[in-house]
Amino acid sequence: MSRKYVYNFGDGKADGNATMKELLGGKGANLAEMSNLGIPVPAGFTISTEVCNQYYDNKGQYNEAVIEQVKKGIEHIEKTMGAKFGDKKNPLLVSVRSGAPASMPGMMDTVLNLGLNEETIEGIIQQSNNERFGWDSYRRFVQMYGDVVLGMKPESKEEEDPFELIIDEVKEEKGVLLDTELDAEDLKKLVELFKNEIKKRTGKNFPTDPWEQLWGAVGAVFSSWNNQRALTYRKLNNIPAHWGTAVNVQSMVFGNMGDDCATGVAFTRDPATGNKQFYGEYLVNAQGEDVVAGTRTPQPINDSTKSDPTHKTLAEIMPGPYKELEAIYLKLENHYKEMQDIEFTIQKGHLWMLQTRTGKRTAAAAVRIAVEMVEEKLIDKTTAISRVDPEQLDQLLHPTFDLNADRKVIATALPASPGAATGRIVFHADDAEEWAGRGEDIILVRIETSPEDIGGMNVAKGILTARGGMTSHAAVVARGMGTCCVAGCGELSIDYRAKTMTVEGTVYNEGDWISLDGSKGEVIEGKVPTAQPELSGDFGKLMSWADDIRKLNIRTNADTPHDSKAARDFGAEGIGLCRTEHMFFEGDRIKAVREMILANDEAGRRSALEKLLPYQRDDFYGIFKAMHDLPVTIRTLDPPLHEFLPHDDENQEIMAKEMGITKEEVIAKVNSLHEFNPMLGHRGCRLGISYPEITEMQARAILEAACQLKKEGVNVYPEIMIPLIGTKAELANQKEVVVKTADEVQKEMGVEVNYKVGTMIEIPRAALTADEVAEEADFFSFGTNDLTQMAFGYSRDDAGKFLKEYQDKNILPDDPFQTLDQSGVGQLVEIAVEKGRKTKKDLKIGICGEHGGDPRSIDFCHRVGMNYVSCSPFRVPIARLAAAQAEINNK
Amino acid sequence: MSRKYVYNFGDGKADGNATMKELLGGKGANLAEMSNLGIPVPAGFTISTEVCNQYYDNKGQYNEAVIEQVKKGIEHIEKTMGAKFGDKKNPLLVSVRSGAPASMPGMMDTVLNLGLNEETIEGIIQQSNNERFGWDSYRRFVQMYGDVVLGMKPESKEEEDPFELIIDEVKEEKGVLLDTELDAEDLKKLVELFKNEIKKRTGKNFPTDPWEQLWGAVGAVFSSWNNQRALTYRKLNNIPAHWGTAVNVQSMVFGNMGDDCATGVAFTRDPATGNKQFYGEYLVNAQGEDVVAGTRTPQPINDSTKSDPTHKTLAEIMPGPYKELEAIYLKLENHYKEMQDIEFTIQKGHLWMLQTRTGKRTAAAAVRIAVEMVEEKLIDKTTAISRVDPEQLDQLLHPTFDLNADRKVIATALPASPGAATGRIVFHADDAEEWAGRGEDIILVRIETSPEDIGGMNVAKGILTARGGMTSHAAVVARGMGTCCVAGCGELSIDYRAKTMTVEGTVYNEGDWISLDGSKGEVIEGKVPTAQPELSGDFGKLMSWADDIRKLNIRTNADTPHDSKAARDFGAEGIGLCRTEHMFFEGDRIKAVREMILANDEAGRRSALEKLLPYQRDDFYGIFKAMHDLPVTIRTLDPPLHEFLPHDDENQEIMAKEMGITKEEVIAKVNSLHEFNPMLGHRGCRLGISYPEITEMQARAILEAACQLKKEGVNVYPEIMIPLIGTKAELANQKEVVVKTADEVQKEMGVEVNYKVGTMIEIPRAALTADEVAEEADFFSFGTNDLTQMAFGYSRDDAGKFLKEYQDKNILPDDPFQTLDQSGVGQLVEIAVEKGRKTKKDLKIGICGEHGGDPRSIDFCHRVGMNYVSCSPFRVPIARLAAAQAEINNK
Repeated sequence: MSRKYVYNFGDGKADGNATMKELLGGKGANLAEMSNLGIPVPAGFTISTEVCNQYYDNKGQYNEAVIEQVKKGIEHIEKTMGAKFGDKKNPLLVSVRSGAPASMPGMMDTVLNLGLNEETIEGIIQQSNNERFGWDSYRRFVQMYGDVVLGMKPESKEEEDPFELIIDEVKEEKGVLLDTELDAEDLKKLVELFKNEIKKRTGKNFPTDPWEQLWGAVGAVFSSWNNQRALTYRKLNNIPAHWGTAVNVQSMVFGNMGDDCATGVAFTRDPATGNKQFYGEYLVNAQGEDVVAGTRTPQPINDSTKSDPTHKTLAEIMPGPYKELEAIYLKLENHYKEMQDIEFTIQKGHLWMLQTRTGKRTAAAAVRIAVEMVEEKLIDKTTAISRVDPEQLDQLLHPTFDLNADRKVIATALPASPGAATGRIVFHADDAEEWAGRGEDIILVRIETSPEDIGGMNVAKGILTARGGMTSHAAVVARGMGTCCVAGCGELSIDYRAKTMTVEGTVYNEGDWISLDGSKGEVIEGKVPTAQPELSGDFGKLMSWADDIRKLNIRTNADTPHDSKAARDFGAEGIGLCRTEHMFFEGDRIKAVREMILANDEAGRRSALEKLLPYQRDDFYGIFKAMHDLPVTIRTLDPPLHEFLPHDDENQEIMAKEMGITKEEVIAKVNSLHEFNPMLGHRGCRLGISYPEITEMQARAILEAACQLKKEGVNVYPEIMIPLIGTKAELANQKEVVVKTADEVQKEMGVEVNYKVGTMIEIPRAALTADEVAEEADFFSFGTNDLTQMAFGYSRDDAGKFLKEYQDKNILPDDPFQTLDQSGVGQLVEIAVEKGRKTKKDLKIGICGEHGGDPRSIDFCHRVGMNYVSCSPFRVPIARLAAAQAEINNK
Repeated sequence: MSRKYVYNFGDGKADGNATMKELLGGKGANLAEMSNLGIPVPAGFTISTEVCNQYYDNKGQYNEAVIEQVKKGIEHIEKTMGAKFGDKKNPLLVSVRSGAPASMPGMMDTVLNLGLNEETIEGIIQQSNNERFGWDSYRRFVQMYGDVVLGMKPESKEEEDPFELIIDEVKEEKGVLLDTELDAEDLKKLVELFKNEIKKRTGKNFPTDPWEQLWGAVGAVFSSWNNQRALTYRKLNNIPAHWGTAVNVQSMVFGNMGDDCATGVAFTRDPATGNKQFYGEYLVNAQGEDVVAGTRTPQPINDSTKSDPTHKTLAEIMPGPYKELEAIYLKLENHYKEMQDIEFTIQKGHLWMLQTRTGKRTAAAAVRIAVEMVEEKLIDKTTAISRVDPEQLDQLLHPTFDLNADRKVIATALPASPGAATGRIVFHADDAEEWAGRGEDIILVRIETSPEDIGGMNVAKGILTARGGMTSHAAVVARGMGTCCVAGCGELSIDYRAKTMTVEGTVYNEGDWISLDGSKGEVIEGKVPTAQPELSGDFGKLMSWADDIRKLNIRTNADTPHDSKAARDFGAEGIGLCRTEHMFFEGDRIKAVREMILANDEAGRRSALEKLLPYQRDDFYGIFKAMHDLPVTIRTLDPPLHEFLPHDDENQEIMAKEMGITKEEVIAKVNSLHEFNPMLGHRGCRLGISYPEITEMQARAILEAACQLKKEGVNVYPEIMIPLIGTKAELANQKEVVVKTADEVQKEMGVEVNYKVGTMIEIPRAALTADEVAEEADFFSFGTNDLTQMAFGYSRDDAGKFLKEYQDKNILPDDPFQTLDQSGVGQLVEIAVEKGRKTKKDLKIGICGEHGGDPRSIDFCHRVGMNYVSCSPFRVPIARLAAAQAEINNK
């Protein structure tokens, strides 16, 4: 027997089940699972993701087994649904849809109503007893097939869809405005005109053989795995290219056969808040695509989300099917033990389930649902922790609008994705990318969004749409991204050409500032001040469960007492990186710093450093105090000295005046410090080795502050960290300076402080010789930013140019500055951990590069046995959760 | 029994022998060996190098055993020499000299005549029957001891030695000019004045107790291991600090007791040419230091080097001792099977040997001696290969003066170190360093040189002295360095203050150009054109022996047919690195390159590249032809594009005019290509990935040239090398472009060429993931320049600032850009070799970084199993020899 490529479902049983997502995709696996659960699913089959890879490997050819099994699959549908593919009397129509292992909503192509031709159309009209429905279905099929399979869809967004142009012409001819005003004759004419246009443009006749149609559609869906939208989405969501998509071929059911038909989508709990209530929207006499596309504003399925009293709920209009739907949603949530996002169609009063999947939700909802499901004893704490995407927590950790601030609300609409955003209006996704590219905060304002807008949506601070409901494209995607969104704002009148939006007579232009409150659905004129987020009780509960489980400590990167306190409030257990150079710029300090740089000898440098000492001591005093009882890692001076000098004419003049020297002298110093590759130049410990007096001053400031606090009864644990170490000898040199100074200060002040001296591991050579370096180090802290720069040979300041291209061309799966490159840079980390611990079994090891706040990188840090990760204050909770997940995933 | 620290010698036997150099130093081990051979050596003992390390560890303290054994050692000398330390009647006087495991001539301190005081002086006068000799010895002792042990020697070279000032005063008082005109009374007075000066400056009395004198001198010698000269010398010669020096305490013998006394140095073969003849110089009635210091011009020991008929040879004057000396030199050379550098003293007709050691020699002499000793069956070929320092061969591989050129010889003197040099005159070592530091070629002109001048001698192209013989300091050091030297040029009158030298009335100023022919001893006015070196028959023989032994292939880095041919003549077995970017600058090409850079789209770039194609094809045609039958590795474009644009105002203007655009457009392009760290920016394969058409053009040029030659019956083996690969995907991307183009060209031209596609390994990540990279690579070539930059995080352009400091502070043993850092960067090389070969067992692996020409790095390349090293054409013979030595050393 040949390998199985096609998996049937329907009629209360299925070849597959929910665990087979990799092979059948999410949609196919869940259709199988629903079928197995006895839930009414239109019969169909799934062509596995294996075939997708074969499709690409064999340049679009299928092997015999696939062809044979698809034939058998169609027979299975025919038998189950009691209709026949290509039959004149009772024809079977099918949908052909993509279904990847990970959800990629709207990114790939779909063909509906497949199987129609001049003969089967008669059967459909007879079966539905509705000529207009028949021709409308045919018209939709030809249009969709033409676009998706025959390449009629214009590549440029500027160009109009040729089919839409024809529809407009016919409407104009007839003198009507709406599609719904076209009758069966008009639609029949459209089919003819569509086919002619296809013939004209492609030179081919529209295929009439249902089998030819089917294989065309299957191939088009496989092809759409690599369309631009799909590529972008995969990149944003870290979905590997080799996964491939499955194809689901399924019997059509119709929500648009008349007023006893409907279609809808629903969530088993509120995806915005997590509230435990059945929540959804539907449209009478419509196809499913109409709900998602946001072209008609749908109605609530029940009272829970009803806001407009004129709306009719599904429960009111079709109580029987609604009751059935309720039973199914409860069955599904209890079965999956997870909030579900379901799609259904009611055809002539008969309920069909078209999809169930894990529902996307806001971070707030994710936390609430996870915690409540534990309380409902549906899941355990470990599962709850795993259910929340750490990255998504970011939404909860950023400021919201200050409640006490004045806000001029100019419109209210659906609170589609919570959060607060302020930015400048742009109307096109391309513009959004361009504006954001130059650092502007922008709000993307659209009549409605479509998958083509994904790039612009991704860079927007907030999204505002004039049309579409809570499950519209804009709403779903925004929630997934954690971007604030206000949707379906009917008061808005948008003129794309003029780049204006008008609200009650007021015109807002591109570039004007507006704010969105995604939690309330408010559109606000101008900027609104923000306030710190309140972390809910559920959040606190989830965090405490995570803390119980995780093995990694979480520290923060903070340079001020203020940031230290904020991080501590977020749960930081120490400072992993305090950069001292930022302190050098404030107020009068920069003058002393420049004096030191200009000095020609050690004595001159020492006298300038003496002026800096009290400032630094005060800095450290404040930070140590804020972090009492916790370790504080302070890095000695790192950047090259030229960063402290002005490089433009004007400021050089000012500096010259301030320092009482000539501008030429300033310029001469700037030139003498110029470096071709400052990243690889005279910086880090190399400075401290050239000018030990700098390290000495910093060590003194640290120890004096620590001793002072010790005297005041505060516990301090300074960890002095030497940057850019490449050899053991460098560390030994700087350690000697630190220890000598520390001995002096402790003697002078008459107290002893428990301090450590350690090193950054950020130079590949230090990682490779970590066994030697560890002889001098009390701790290691991985500086994975620089380690990545040097291991890859990428300057972070310059690599932007080609890193995007590299991801587009599949040369790199991720930006290695965002997610640690485990297979390359990660080897250096592993080598260093192993060698370091070989020398010192209990060597304390952490990470202070930006990867310390990236969940996937945290998983790696856990696996290699680090003691802690350190990240920016706002990412501390993310790291706490990610650390717990790392422990769970690697058990 | 306690550990042995002190080793006796003398009287036909010894505790040590020649193999114990590490413990006894070279001098001590050889004194022991000579003693064992029955050669007359004044009795003495050696304090081992272990004690030197203890001396530093214990801050100048000695343990009991050392003190006890030194006492026993003095007893041994007393017994053997029949004199007594501190005895009034027959006092024993000793010398205290350093002796490190490696020769460090003149770098450390020595004390002679130790044991003299107001009482023993009487015994010496009695024994020598020469009052003046007695007081002169005492005077020398007090002066030397004062300088070396009591710190009377001024630290600055500007300051005069206080003892010399006193001598001058006394001479003035007496109205005489020469030291020799002072009589016993005068010398006695000097001793008194010296002691008073010492008391005045140090507050201490000059020690009279011989034991106190002895321990003072021993400590001073140990201390001198770390004086500035010694540190500099060790750095230049890669001698590790932890070796330490031994101290030799030996009975004094005197060459200055009268006219039946003499002292001299000799070589068993001619150290300049290698000619097999006994060769040396001596002075009657003198101490050994007088010969080496060059203060009196010595006489030849025999006719072989006699040039001045007025000179008397030792053979003529003292035929007995000379005959004895002849027997000893033959015995020594036969014993050591190596050319010896010997020192002797004749005291009242009795010959004493004071030292034997392997003689320094020029590269030409080294080659000749090694080859002739094989022919004499003294040594085997393997030993001969090991005897020649590959680095030294450099001397033989550089141009000599063109024999046909006019040369105005202004003076002729001793051909002290062969070679040809042209440069500008400087008179002080400090100035030499300064001038050379700014890139000037300089000739150091001195009356005589001293160890203080070592830094200046090291940077000079040539050295010219007015005084001193073939074994003077200048001559010995210059030969060791391979620097051309003309010595003892009496026609020269040098005025240090005026910075002039006058030859027969013509005044030459600082900065004037002169040339030196070190092989003929000629001083030439102005610059002289140079000619290629002729490689002697001995050289060819040695090379062919090396070729028989070595396993590594030797390739060259060459970018032109001319260089390729030169390298092939030097024995290169292929090209390991042909850089294509150099070709982009010639003539009209740069215009096409700039056109490509300015182009806004692929079509524009392609049209510019089309203009470059014929140039590149011709380049490769020439190189392939020159290297017929040998592999040629061509690297695709590597540097960032901004390197091809002008950065200064004037040239930007010119370019704008040439290209028919505005200067602003040029500047805008320059700015848009600006990078913060170009080393880590958009270069290497990253360019080829962004603009595949560049790689395509280069692949086409290579293949078209190769196919053309193939058609002409020439065998070509192109190896296309992609630079800056960090990931397998990058290489796969570029390989695809190359292979596709190669397929096309081969089809077009109707021939097939055996070509390979491989990669540089120069990015740490590529080394770490070499198993993956090897899947796409036919070969690896280590780019250790960049690999060192990235593994250390050093920008080669900027690191000069601190690398010198790092070596001075013992943080780095070597400049890692000169000698591969085996313990760090080397790990990446080892990892890559191992992983690469794990994927492809027979993967061809080489190195094309500059380390490929460095003997120590070549040893490493051999050990890790590379197939070849590639270096600059002039270093090919060095690499051939080093590769043979690597095979010998690692067998």
